[in-house]
Amino acid sequence: MDITERIPQFDEPVDRTAISSMKWNVADSELPMWVADMDFQTAPCITEALKKRVANGTFGYTDIPDEWSTAIANWWKTRYGMDVDPTHITFTTGVIPAISSLVRSLTNVAEKVVIQPPVYNIFTNSIVNNGRRVLNNPLIYSNGEYSIDFDDLENKLSDPLARLMIVCNPHNPSGNVWSRDDLARIGELCAKYDVTVISDEIHCDVIRPGLTHTPFAAASETNRRISVTCSSPSKAFNVAGLQSAYFFCDDAGLRARAVRGVNTDEVAEPNDFAVFSTIAAYEHSADWLDQLCQVAQRNKDYANRVIGERCAELLHMVPSDSTYLAWIDCSGLLDRVGDATAERFCDYLREHTGLILSYGGIYGENGVRFLRMNLGTRADLVIDGLNRLATGANDYVRNDR
Amino acid sequence: MDITERIPQFDEPVDRTAISSMKWNVADSELPMWVADMDFQTAPCITEALKKRVANGTFGYTDIPDEWSTAIANWWKTRYGMDVDPTHITFTTGVIPAISSLVRSLTNVAEKVVIQPPVYNIFTNSIVNNGRRVLNNPLIYSNGEYSIDFDDLENKLSDPLARLMIVCNPHNPSGNVWSRDDLARIGELCAKYDVTVISDEIHCDVIRPGLTHTPFAAASETNRRISVTCSSPSKAFNVAGLQSAYFFCDDAGLRARAVRGVNTDEVAEPNDFAVFSTIAAYEHSADWLDQLCQVAQRNKDYANRVIGERCAELLHMVPSDSTYLAWIDCSGLLDRVGDATAERFCDYLREHTGLILSYGGIYGENGVRFLRMNLGTRADLVIDGLNRLATGANDYVRNDR
Repeated sequence: MDITERIPQFDEPVDRTAISSMKWNVADSELPMWVADMDFQTAPCITEALKKRVANGTFGYTDIPDEWSTAIANWWKTRYGMDVDPTHITFTTGVIPAISSLVRSLTNVAEKVVIQPPVYNIFTNSIVNNGRRVLNNPLIYSNGEYSIDFDDLENKLSDPLARLMIVCNPHNPSGNVWSRDDLARIGELCAKYDVTVISDEIHCDVIRPGLTHTPFAAASETNRRISVTCSSPSKAFNVAGLQSAYFFCDDAGLRARAVRGVNTDEVAEPNDFAVFSTIAAYEHSADWLDQLCQVAQRNKDYANRVIGERCAELLHMVPSDSTYLAWIDCSGLLDRVGDATAERFCDYLREHTGLILSYGGIYGENGVRFLRMNLGTRADLVIDGLNRLATGANDYVRNDR
Repeated sequence: MDITERIPQFDEPVDRTAISSMKWNVADSELPMWVADMDFQTAPCITEALKKRVANGTFGYTDIPDEWSTAIANWWKTRYGMDVDPTHITFTTGVIPAISSLVRSLTNVAEKVVIQPPVYNIFTNSIVNNGRRVLNNPLIYSNGEYSIDFDDLENKLSDPLARLMIVCNPHNPSGNVWSRDDLARIGELCAKYDVTVISDEIHCDVIRPGLTHTPFAAASETNRRISVTCSSPSKAFNVAGLQSAYFFCDDAGLRARAVRGVNTDEVAEPNDFAVFSTIAAYEHSADWLDQLCQVAQRNKDYANRVIGERCAELLHMVPSDSTYLAWIDCSGLLDRVGDATAERFCDYLREHTGLILSYGGIYGENGVRFLRMNLGTRADLVIDGLNRLATGANDYVRNDR
């Protein structure tokens, strides 16, 4: 699908200026392509469910009905071929609230949690804010692509204070869709060293058309036993602001601790919109999601082409099979001008072109030469954003001479 | 205002059966008058704000705009004559999430938190679930009314492990509106023993017409310095399911710890509806609230009259200046049949009349002879509920002979 092919649902302008949007809290000429929400209206069924709920006019306490867990279980079965026991699913207000709580309930202060940078920066907050320690297993970056350093991983997991590993599956920001073999191997090593796994699968639904996501817990019986899987309709259906997420876990002991944790931490009760929107997403919005995946891929392909045509020697977009995010290696540009990190270039882009990207350094030390670009927006703005990026990159290098 | 006077907005039937309401998850013939949400539709301005937000169709991350804190500050100034610095207000997803977080951030494991039972049962959960200990300062119950036992309070506060006190202002379930003197005296004692105060003021807006609420922090300069005040539009405007609350605190050090706490605990980010509904409530719905207070008082007056007329020797409704809750002393009935607690009577009411009340024992040991009845519903159901209660009480005693 080419960027000239438009789908009205995704490519017509949507006004996000009057809703106190975090992303669009910018100057008029600025183009925000940073925080991971999309500019698309959500699936019509979800909006309909919200309208219906609002029309009731009473907004008291909501129970979680069986339809909610059944809808989630059906989703995982239909899309990923995985059996999830509906009674093993727990509501939480978000994947990060769940992960922060799990860090507290599954580890003690000063113990260590393994992560794989460059990775979603908030994992570090969830660990450090709770007095636990980060143990980095950096991904290997070679020939412009990422893979897992299993030797280093085993070394880190063998630390007796390593109690937990947070797997990002698919990987944010790189967009890696980990293979069944990779996931099973992670699980085997974690089991060997008695390390519990949290698998963050919030980005799993936005995937290259034709590919499929492998849930961590589906990769092996061991994986299933030692893990808690967290996910949400929030990324795929653009409903982060509805604060609806969940985790599932088959091991009864692990689950009891996790459930107790989110209850104590007060992140286990749904607002009045969370349950209904999730059911609407998973039961009635699969076609919408399939279209979204086409659009996300179209945007990423376009970004890759523009970068290749206009600044191939300066920037490289890491091949990505998931998410609507582009992870852009700026090494060519940095080497040309002698910058150690992409931070100054990131600031330059905002100042001189109005394009707001995320500086890669927030995702870990090995992300300092990268920028993350959110392509979850309409074609016009994708084109605009890539033009600002390419122009900005060329100007940055030219001005520096 | 008499129960025969009806206000369509509050007295016409509202269907709460298709929204997975926690309160109405009951059998067809049952009448739930337990959990503290009301059966009224919220103020029209709030519903309009929600409709407008839903119509946007994008549900990403929301920033908290200045209008939000200004609306809250204006509310406290206009209604309670209190100056609240807008920059000292912090969003949280609920008063209980805030209190649980404050317990964690302001005390250490095994330290003690003073509460005044019979009191909202979840305070105990917030303390015990986090490994802290409850220190009870039971209210004095004399001549059918409650007051504070200041001698015992000083004794409890002087415990060197007492670090925090949770004041319930106004008091749930008794409906006491504490006087400025009472509040200042609590503050003075807490300051003497270096005990921080959390004042839960979630019920402050539903008050006997003509009376006013005194915020704990407004009772003295000392009170202001040592306290964190938690509140929300949720009880007054019947929007518990919108998960919108806040706390304010003038002391910079205390506030920094509190804010850090709710952030770490992931209860500091608003869903897409929280901010707008709060602004709509506080800026445009004061008249609606005034009417609600009339209706709540009408319902409580009616309950008091029916109990007086039909079962005065069995039940006594504690005089109440706040909340839409009736706190009913069952001593007469219990003495007649020889029951030690009201639990069996509570079960009997549900089984034989379908009326579902809250058993007072959950609010503390000194609540075991009480029932709590939620009168936040339309006149028809108030009449129905009181009829079930009076009939049930008389039958209970008669059958027991």
